[in-house]
Amino acid sequence: MTATEPWRDAPAAASRQPVWITELPADEVDAFAAAAPDGPLTGLRFGIKDNLALAGHPTTAACPGLADSIAATSAVAVQRLVDAGAVPVGKTNMDQFATGLVGTRSPYGACHSVHSPQHISGGSSSGSAVVVASGLVPLALGTDTAGSGRVPAAFNGIVGIKPTRGLVSTRGLLPACRSLDCVTTFTRTVAEGAAALTVLAQPDPGDPWSRPAPPAPAPGVAARMRVVAVPAGDLDLDPVHRVAWEEALRRLDTVAAHVVPVDVTAFLETARLLYGGPWLAERWAAFGAYLSAPGVDPTVRAVVTPGRDVPGPEVFRGLDRLAGLRRRTEAVWPDVDALMLPVTPGHPTLAEVAADPVGVNSRLGTYTNFVNLLDLCAVAVPAGTRPDGLPFGVQFVAPAFADRPLLDLAAAWCGEPVAAPSPAAGTSLVAVAG
Amino acid sequence: MTATEPWRDAPAAASRQPVWITELPADEVDAFAAAAPDGPLTGLRFGIKDNLALAGHPTTAACPGLADSIAATSAVAVQRLVDAGAVPVGKTNMDQFATGLVGTRSPYGACHSVHSPQHISGGSSSGSAVVVASGLVPLALGTDTAGSGRVPAAFNGIVGIKPTRGLVSTRGLLPACRSLDCVTTFTRTVAEGAAALTVLAQPDPGDPWSRPAPPAPAPGVAARMRVVAVPAGDLDLDPVHRVAWEEALRRLDTVAAHVVPVDVTAFLETARLLYGGPWLAERWAAFGAYLSAPGVDPTVRAVVTPGRDVPGPEVFRGLDRLAGLRRRTEAVWPDVDALMLPVTPGHPTLAEVAADPVGVNSRLGTYTNFVNLLDLCAVAVPAGTRPDGLPFGVQFVAPAFADRPLLDLAAAWCGEPVAAPSPAAGTSLVAVAG
Repeated sequence: MTATEPWRDAPAAASRQPVWITELPADEVDAFAAAAPDGPLTGLRFGIKDNLALAGHPTTAACPGLADSIAATSAVAVQRLVDAGAVPVGKTNMDQFATGLVGTRSPYGACHSVHSPQHISGGSSSGSAVVVASGLVPLALGTDTAGSGRVPAAFNGIVGIKPTRGLVSTRGLLPACRSLDCVTTFTRTVAEGAAALTVLAQPDPGDPWSRPAPPAPAPGVAARMRVVAVPAGDLDLDPVHRVAWEEALRRLDTVAAHVVPVDVTAFLETARLLYGGPWLAERWAAFGAYLSAPGVDPTVRAVVTPGRDVPGPEVFRGLDRLAGLRRRTEAVWPDVDALMLPVTPGHPTLAEVAADPVGVNSRLGTYTNFVNLLDLCAVAVPAGTRPDGLPFGVQFVAPAFADRPLLDLAAAWCGEPVAAPSPAAGTSLVAVAG
Repeated sequence: MTATEPWRDAPAAASRQPVWITELPADEVDAFAAAAPDGPLTGLRFGIKDNLALAGHPTTAACPGLADSIAATSAVAVQRLVDAGAVPVGKTNMDQFATGLVGTRSPYGACHSVHSPQHISGGSSSGSAVVVASGLVPLALGTDTAGSGRVPAAFNGIVGIKPTRGLVSTRGLLPACRSLDCVTTFTRTVAEGAAALTVLAQPDPGDPWSRPAPPAPAPGVAARMRVVAVPAGDLDLDPVHRVAWEEALRRLDTVAAHVVPVDVTAFLETARLLYGGPWLAERWAAFGAYLSAPGVDPTVRAVVTPGRDVPGPEVFRGLDRLAGLRRRTEAVWPDVDALMLPVTPGHPTLAEVAADPVGVNSRLGTYTNFVNLLDLCAVAVPAGTRPDGLPFGVQFVAPAFADRPLLDLAAAWCGEPVAAPSPAAGTSLVAVAG
């Protein structure tokens, strides 16, 4: 044990937060470090959201009723990091069953933003965002179905990469919505996240939802993103949030050659589908059987239980509505490379969430829920601070398999060096300057 | 009216069959012919399966309760043919709501094979297959969800093209399963079907399920199909059917450079999903509301009504199972260009269907049900006759958007001239020798 390892000498603010569900014993961390192969991530410490399996430890998804069930093998994503030399240090707290964007729906305790004890950390990957933002570890794995990999990044001033669906194996994930779940990264810089994603993004023949990246960029995906869309018309934003958003809009000119207002009505309508019916049935299919286990969060149970009773025909009607909405949103992409949006409409306090746990949570997904339903990739990046000093985050969103140029755009936004597009750009999906 | 127009002077055998639900009046046919633009199909008479709208006529889907509802506009597929100069002559009989592979589930009467009054025509596109096979018209539109565009082609000795899902607009179709339905063609030759498909295959921004063909062939799709897979191991086939299948296997060497046995277990397992639960809910969503209308076929009602009560979570479990099966079947395609299968395991009589309407129908889908679930394209082609003189059909099956080379393979099989692959093959998806 060395004094320079921050996850063993945590900053006071973070150590007062319930960021871990399972902290690895020092000797196990040391054993991982000693066994770490020489790879692109050798020695890099990382946290693991507790819905991803780490061999020898429980995968609780923040449900204490699952704490006795020990994973025999690690999730593929976890194993890929380990195989690249990274060193796991613990399993992080989360909104139970990844159902929430708040970070408060956990019997292991609520997290808060590293910038304010009164304001939520965001979720569901609450612990993973806080352990990175507080400097405990440089990397943590999260997941993102409705926004769980982006909202807590925004609320803690860090980078959250939500790759294209299927790019990173979800084998070993306790699912929320099997068809939508993505494994994500939290880092302080885009380059660090991109380096991790390069390791993570490999096809997995054992995961039905894994998809290999196409050998060439998808038609219409620019190697360098120059045209960035922003929502036309007014957005639902808290006043302090709006100030920061307008500043971000002004700043966009410094990284985009062309800024184009587009109608985002169909995107926002899609967002409302996610908790509006059919996809609750997918959550029920994934973990409904656990909702009678001890320690189930009452809000999570109340939100997901109606999924049991969604009629099958209603699911297909939902898929049909989604197909129609996707068609409408597709009209945007031939003309633009990416879309910039705020990550959330506001940043609630713990008290506000406690007063209206479902309503406040729902509003948080306004700008994130649609991304996986529409098969898009996204990255949440810091975008300055609000007048009250809280961090503000924006997200860049693009079509499936545009991950690499999207990360280049995000790196440019963050003032990080951007690699020149290589002739083989299409074959190296996520290789940005690292 | 001219004596050389066979649809007005039908062969006796066909005229005794209930092939039409609506026959267009002679003056309306004449008006279409007079107004026909100069196009690739000018003057070509065609039949329309009665689940596709023709303006000014009802779309019954063989349900008399819908006979009073007159379509205001034609289905996009119908209109494309008309715009190319083709002339509609009538709406054809079908298994009600396209739910059946037999051709007997219609209050408008059962059809039979043009080659035997005792044997079924196949369905659900029964009338469309018979009007082409009997020489009434050279072209008819069908649809195919589980095999409805291929089974009646095989049972009547003609060509049935089931294009890639989304290649032909389904706008104006009274759906069976929105996410799976395809508009198909019946013709006597591959070239005639390919010519029609060239006209039909256009993206439709108004159809949520329309998909544009990729600008280049999908990775792994051969411009000229040389390696054809056949099922390894034994198949469920009636004895007379098996004789014809074995003859087809021997003949395959004449068109394929390499014939490769492959394990088709996962394909056949996928086939059983279609009527095993979840997708019945999609049929209920599509037309469950009509099942209380007058004239509903009792077998169709009995088959589809359980779809109402499929739980939503079960639908998502089915989608997840399908994803896993698709992954298993994908292992086949890197090594082969196409897969040859019999269209059906046998050719039942009308009496056999009457004795066991559900069981006989289910078995008919053994080799066709999986094709749309797995996002494949297919073409059913004649393959000689069985010892009892009935026609036998095989199907060639390939991944999505392999339509053009698949039709070339089918043309070669049928002894029709095949165009040399053009340099711009990828941009002209279905241009075969015509």
